[in-house]
Amino acid sequence: ELSTPATPGTSLDLRGIFPPLATPFTARGEVDYGRLEENLHRYARIPFRGFVVQGSTGECPYLTPQERLAVLSCVRQALPPDRLLLAGTGCESTQGTIAMSLSVAEAGADAALVVTPCYYRGSMTSAALIHHYTQVADASPVPVVLYSVPANTGLELPLQAVLTLSQHPNIVGLKDSGGDITRLGLIVHKTRMEDFQALVGSAGFLMAGYAVGACGGICALANILGAPLCELERLCHEGRWQEARDLQLRLIEPNAAVTQKLGIPALKQAMEWFGYHGGSCRAPLRPLNEAEVQELRRDFSANGWL
Amino acid sequence: ELSTPATPGTSLDLRGIFPPLATPFTARGEVDYGRLEENLHRYARIPFRGFVVQGSTGECPYLTPQERLAVLSCVRQALPPDRLLLAGTGCESTQGTIAMSLSVAEAGADAALVVTPCYYRGSMTSAALIHHYTQVADASPVPVVLYSVPANTGLELPLQAVLTLSQHPNIVGLKDSGGDITRLGLIVHKTRMEDFQALVGSAGFLMAGYAVGACGGICALANILGAPLCELERLCHEGRWQEARDLQLRLIEPNAAVTQKLGIPALKQAMEWFGYHGGSCRAPLRPLNEAEVQELRRDFSANGWL
Amino acid sequence: ELSTPATPGTSLDLRGIFPPLATPFTARGEVDYGRLEENLHRYARIPFRGFVVQGSTGECPYLTPQERLAVLSCVRQALPPDRLLLAGTGCESTQGTIAMSLSVAEAGADAALVVTPCYYRGSMTSAALIHHYTQVADASPVPVVLYSVPANTGLELPLQAVLTLSQHPNIVGLKDSGGDITRLGLIVHKTRMEDFQALVGSAGFLMAGYAVGACGGICALANILGAPLCELERLCHEGRWQEARDLQLRLIEPNAAVTQKLGIPALKQAMEWFGYHGGSCRAPLRPLNEAEVQELRRDFSANGWL
Amino acid sequence: ELSTPATPGTSLDLRGIFPPLATPFTARGEVDYGRLEENLHRYARIPFRGFVVQGSTGECPYLTPQERLAVLSCVRQALPPDRLLLAGTGCESTQGTIAMSLSVAEAGADAALVVTPCYYRGSMTSAALIHHYTQVADASPVPVVLYSVPANTGLELPLQAVLTLSQHPNIVGLKDSGGDITRLGLIVHKTRMEDFQALVGSAGFLMAGYAVGACGGICALANILGAPLCELERLCHEGRWQEARDLQLRLIEPNAAVTQKLGIPALKQAMEWFGYHGGSCRAPLRPLNEAEVQELRRDFSANGWL
Repeated sequence: ELSTPATPGTSLDLRGIFPPLATPFTARGEVDYGRLEENLHRYARIPFRGFVVQGSTGECPYLTPQERLAVLSCVRQALPPDRLLLAGTGCESTQGTIAMSLSVAEAGADAALVVTPCYYRGSMTSAALIHHYTQVADASPVPVVLYSVPANTGLELPLQAVLTLSQHPNIVGLKDSGGDITRLGLIVHKTRMEDFQALVGSAGFLMAGYAVGACGGICALANILGAPLCELERLCHEGRWQEARDLQLRLIEPNAAVTQKLGIPALKQAMEWFGYHGGSCRAPLRPLNEAEVQELRRDFSANGWL
Repeated sequence: ELSTPATPGTSLDLRGIFPPLATPFTARGEVDYGRLEENLHRYARIPFRGFVVQGSTGECPYLTPQERLAVLSCVRQALPPDRLLLAGTGCESTQGTIAMSLSVAEAGADAALVVTPCYYRGSMTSAALIHHYTQVADASPVPVVLYSVPANTGLELPLQAVLTLSQHPNIVGLKDSGGDITRLGLIVHKTRMEDFQALVGSAGFLMAGYAVGACGGICALANILGAPLCELERLCHEGRWQEARDLQLRLIEPNAAVTQKLGIPALKQAMEWFGYHGGSCRAPLRPLNEAEVQELRRDFSANGWL
Repeated sequence: ELSTPATPGTSLDLRGIFPPLATPFTARGEVDYGRLEENLHRYARIPFRGFVVQGSTGECPYLTPQERLAVLSCVRQALPPDRLLLAGTGCESTQGTIAMSLSVAEAGADAALVVTPCYYRGSMTSAALIHHYTQVADASPVPVVLYSVPANTGLELPLQAVLTLSQHPNIVGLKDSGGDITRLGLIVHKTRMEDFQALVGSAGFLMAGYAVGACGGICALANILGAPLCELERLCHEGRWQEARDLQLRLIEPNAAVTQKLGIPALKQAMEWFGYHGGSCRAPLRPLNEAEVQELRRDFSANGWL
Repeated sequence: ELSTPATPGTSLDLRGIFPPLATPFTARGEVDYGRLEENLHRYARIPFRGFVVQGSTGECPYLTPQERLAVLSCVRQALPPDRLLLAGTGCESTQGTIAMSLSVAEAGADAALVVTPCYYRGSMTSAALIHHYTQVADASPVPVVLYSVPANTGLELPLQAVLTLSQHPNIVGLKDSGGDITRLGLIVHKTRMEDFQALVGSAGFLMAGYAVGACGGICALANILGAPLCELERLCHEGRWQEARDLQLRLIEPNAAVTQKLGIPALKQAMEWFGYHGGSCRAPLRPLNEAEVQELRRDFSANGWL
């Protein structure tokens, strides 16, 4: 068995799979809290470590601040207390990020997941980002998880910033969605003396992430194929790599379809096929056309999921 | 004389130079409305066509919605009525952008400057962007100006989307900060039958923009060197291209210094040298270090501005 | 009239338009020297300043070293002595580039056009490129023209390297195909004390280039629309900017079609329509399909050229 | 134990580690065949599967065609017959690539490693690349291995092209240096019914590559740390993933130092420290400065290799 890195003394154990929850809307475009709760009810049967709200998958940039907190409260109340709840709190400004971190802590989040600010990306040097995250971590009542997602932000949290920030007592880990497995391995290696946990940000390289020492994954695909992802985690933990590989390889195309290829509209469409409430997205995200729906279905069926 | 494109029937004549206003802050980080008014008082002597609030230069992503509207009201009251006031209203969601456009119109803006949504850039196809801008333009009580700024958004508004949107009666122009003069020329050429005005988004290629048919510029450098930029505009209008070139070439390095090279902290530092209130930026933007201040000074002095 | 920068004492006056010659092949894929001569015979009526062989447009990477020199000799013999002949000599290695520069000088080239080496682009620092070009310029019996073409090489010759190299007595200019008009203006500005000439590398921004002080252009489109390009040059020289603009804007789409959009196969196809020998390309370049031919034709006809 | 994919009927079994050989030069810059043989003599003790000549690491773009074949012959003669010899044969033209493949086959290469042509990258569509490789594979007397190295070429061989080409009977595998482990896994998955072998192109993600089903690696670092890389291969094959991970993580920084960070000059410098002949590079590659040498040393010593 390949054990994940020991993290003694860490206040927050992030080992496991977390779905970044999609946000269902009513026909009139309001957040549909009832359907959100029904999804959570079904997710309760799957051995997830916890959930993420206010991530990219939840259309967080399209929610008002009030809606964000209402979604968080709704999820917190629907969850058994042993499941972790991470809440995205990253804003462009340091001040706004701190304010949001205070709010989510009060509303019951166990940790703040903080995406890199990026609008002035030319000025977001390693020094600026270290300063930003240090201020946020100093002020946040709950632990901070760094979040690097170049496909959305056009900016990768520099390795040197990650290493420096890994030493902050209130920064407990990193979600890395960049897909660079060499970088992920190096982060594991260079932070091995810290209580610092690396989370894979996409189901496409979850097994490779476990292979190099990641402790879990925050995977959009877990909204749809949560049980297989938890099974993949278990196989990796038990050192059953041949089986893990067979499973991992069948997940790459479905994952790509609902992320970089067709995006959140596809994720929500596929949720419907698997018994969850997905529904439509807020504009400017557009519904899939018929050809895209067919392509999406093929990516699931060709890999044995439909 | 090289006349700019005739725009008969256009409800809003954008010909001229617009500073996207920087936002001064107090030592405690609050918006300093007094100093903002003092800047505007000084700008009143310069023949600007108008002003932009809530642009990138104004640290708009770091202002709360309340602050954004308060800044707008402050500027509107300080301006003579013959100066145009454009307000940035672009949010990630279509709904949010519409709401903000309604608010700024009520607060006295003459037009809404709408940056491309970009967080889900993989899904921001030409079709999605056309739908977004059409919804916004249909709902906005004031005319809409498109805004493409790939350096910040990682996304260029596709040519085909610009051409389609140029036909909307409530879309009057485009601010293009991408610096691709061939594209700018082609946009002028392909929209020549529409009431559609192209604005250069940076002082670095203002003269080249005029050469290919742009009607003006929204230039961060106008916060500092507003009079020379208006002089450059005049020289281009009068067909005095040799003089225009001599002036343009001296503006490239100062402009680069306060935009892509050293950013808004440099812009605000240089404002101080020229008698305006600049001051510090909100975090995560960082103050310049001493070496950067020297470099900034050199970029102005080597071109005869200090 | 807007005079181009004076270049007293420059041994080689590059002012004007240069077609980078396409290379016709026989049905069996051999260089067709007869058809090349026929093209040159027709080009003789157009007031080009000179010609370029072994550029990207000539499929130079697909010619053997022997063929390259044979093409050069053929062109040299077919040209009146008052037309300049520039020959591409850039190889990945410094040694290879020097050897090729010696060969083309012997075969009658007036200057060597040296593209940036790029295979190890991570190691092609400003210092490495300065060293490379200095060695080449020291050794070359004919003047050297720098050549930056990021679309092909994935690498832009850094501004600082251009400025340093502009001081070398045997480096007389730069062909810049990057399309960044701000950079081009800055190069003109910062080399104004040197005998250094900037050439626009694409017809898409030729007029803008003249506006900021370029002295001419090496334009693939000149293989097809040579006379209009020379007319555009004349209008810029005579300060007739309104007419220049009208002409320039009609050239953007045809130029894009035969360069970035459809490439050399399109250029050669369009040459046929205008009475030149184009013909097919060497593999792996592929012939246009029917839809592409239609699109190409539309880009010329919609702008009044067909 | 995690078995690598079975490849019954494959004419060429590529399972294992291959160093892409560096090329030593004399003080006068000539290929130093004696030192090359001495390196090979030392490499004979390491259980490599074979060797690659004419790869990027061998400064192949800086060798003349004559030198390339002479290096190949030298290596072939120095090798025991049970070691495979792969030779880079990729040229920009299809015709040139075919000619080189014929030559290396005659000189004793077991396979041709064919990098993507890239100069006209805008025209190198999936269709063009499929046509190119098909022509080459049809003509080559020895099996063809595809080679995708975006860091050098600025172009990734598209997935669809890989899948189509995997069905060609004379195309036996792919060296992928891009580092995208999700893509690599998908290639393994989608070619599982073919005799097609995936080789990792960098030591940085070798273990992750084995985890998703790659069969071996062509790793520049094998010029220096060949034995540990073969040990890593063995651990992966024997399913000892915990030990494999500990070893893999110590190899990332040394590997990065001699590839993307400091390049071939660093690789050759480090070879000297480990008892091989490295020496200097051909221009325009530049020697390391003292600070770079120190950084390089630190990247090896901090990971326990020096």
